[in-house]
Amino acid sequence: MKETIPSKQDIERAHTVLSSFLHRTPVLTSNSLNKMAGAELFFKCENFQKAGAFKARGATFAVTKLPEEKAKKGVATHSSGNHGQALALAAQQRGIKAYVVMPDNAPSVKIAAVKGYGAEVIFCKPSLEARETTLEKVLEKTDATFIHPYDNYHVITGQATCAKELVEDVQSLEHVIAPVGGGGLLAGTLLSLHYFAKNIEGWAAEPMQVNDAFLSLKKGEIVPAPNNKTIADGLRTSLGHRNFPIIKEHVHGIFTVTEEEICSAMRLIWERMKIIIEPSCAVPLAALLHHKTLFRNKRVGLILTGGNVDLEKLPF
Amino acid sequence: MKETIPSKQDIERAHTVLSSFLHRTPVLTSNSLNKMAGAELFFKCENFQKAGAFKARGATFAVTKLPEEKAKKGVATHSSGNHGQALALAAQQRGIKAYVVMPDNAPSVKIAAVKGYGAEVIFCKPSLEARETTLEKVLEKTDATFIHPYDNYHVITGQATCAKELVEDVQSLEHVIAPVGGGGLLAGTLLSLHYFAKNIEGWAAEPMQVNDAFLSLKKGEIVPAPNNKTIADGLRTSLGHRNFPIIKEHVHGIFTVTEEEICSAMRLIWERMKIIIEPSCAVPLAALLHHKTLFRNKRVGLILTGGNVDLEKLPF
Repeated sequence: MKETIPSKQDIERAHTVLSSFLHRTPVLTSNSLNKMAGAELFFKCENFQKAGAFKARGATFAVTKLPEEKAKKGVATHSSGNHGQALALAAQQRGIKAYVVMPDNAPSVKIAAVKGYGAEVIFCKPSLEARETTLEKVLEKTDATFIHPYDNYHVITGQATCAKELVEDVQSLEHVIAPVGGGGLLAGTLLSLHYFAKNIEGWAAEPMQVNDAFLSLKKGEIVPAPNNKTIADGLRTSLGHRNFPIIKEHVHGIFTVTEEEICSAMRLIWERMKIIIEPSCAVPLAALLHHKTLFRNKRVGLILTGGNVDLEKLPF
Repeated sequence: MKETIPSKQDIERAHTVLSSFLHRTPVLTSNSLNKMAGAELFFKCENFQKAGAFKARGATFAVTKLPEEKAKKGVATHSSGNHGQALALAAQQRGIKAYVVMPDNAPSVKIAAVKGYGAEVIFCKPSLEARETTLEKVLEKTDATFIHPYDNYHVITGQATCAKELVEDVQSLEHVIAPVGGGGLLAGTLLSLHYFAKNIEGWAAEPMQVNDAFLSLKKGEIVPAPNNKTIADGLRTSLGHRNFPIIKEHVHGIFTVTEEEICSAMRLIWERMKIIIEPSCAVPLAALLHHKTLFRNKRVGLILTGGNVDLEKLPF
């Protein structure tokens, strides 16, 4: 695996490769949200991406980079969320096997989605330890390649193509806000702003309940995520070792938001934009609405990361 | 008011007028729904239209056609749904007053939306009789012009611009399916297919619970809608007298679908396309999925009429 921070050319090449597999997702706007925010908002809609989330970018690119010898043994990961679906799709597109370790309490709709892309699902108890030991056994048995959901430079390179499209499609952006969990999307976003744009400030946003990125940036080293609940379930993970240095160098600032702010921003996007987004996607808008004066009359890009939500467990 | 069936030129002119007020809504596709249907589906997304539904087309066009003398006295209607919002928006855009009679049990979010466009809301008991008598009093008092939600040629002309865009944006369509309630959208759609396309079969779809259009077409005269419940609450009305003759002449056929089929099609669109649609919008897809053999390998346009749904009362 390549072990240097992705370069401009790496991201450009990844974008070319991915263009034949994935959607260039649309950028949507909303007059009523603009009025409410006092700013011009541009929503990059990765909820319309294949497999329902930006994760398809990183997983697909990582899978395309595997040498044939390794690829034919398959790929594996543990995931209760979007990365599992993304990797299953990526493997299917390359015609190789995917093994996805999932907690046995994962929503049946997510299990069905992973299986729907032809992956083999291996169940384990719902703890990080069980997930990791089960994955190790799978790797031992199959000799498949582990594709980490975010602590992987190819994955970061793939995720970077999302912000690259955003700055290509929207002129004169002044800010971009991305949510941060493990930091795959955020690191990629910041690299693309650095390489492909001028003077765009890149911001991070995370739930106050799981404010490990905020604490990590404050302390200058990775602080593990507290085991707290948040409705933004895609953002519960700790920062990756490859992700943190990129974020530390390039992020302009980080916001934390309450659960109430997340729910209310999610509802605004559903009601005003008529699109389905996961709670994690609402975190950047929640941050912006909390800090309106910072963004007054500015052109702000917000990344809507995915749309895989359990319709039976909505917060409203 | 003009009292002849809208001509090709009427619809073309309306489209030009409306282009400065409203969105040309996107046409979306979904690989997974195509696979499921065994056909190529093109969804015309009026859920992204201003005020959240195609109704903005008809209401806006009718308001633009009012002579100045009449316009300055305002417009009025009764509505528990999208037409009220659409008319309020249209009046606001022209800078005139709108009076909207609403049942006192209307969802607070809909009342807020109508007021948000600056209209005056007049409450009445939740019966058709109360709505009509209250509206009459409002008209007497204000001398405002009543804009009927569908039994109005200008409204039909406005709604026709939706299918005009669809056939302009999608090449070689073979079928279009529109839901039918009062028949404003359906009559407009059929006129546009007749004037602007060749050999596209225009179909109607309605809930089996409120199958008055089916019965009307069978009998050759308007059969009033039974007072049944359906989740597709936009389709509970009887056909209009201006709408029925157009529908009778041009419709290729009509489908009726069960409540279960509507809910299941609605869920498919939410989950697979990640967009928010009202139950009424799901009726055409439900019909298509019930009659797959009819549409096998065909290119089919489906009109998604609106996205104003009460998030607290979802059927799943």
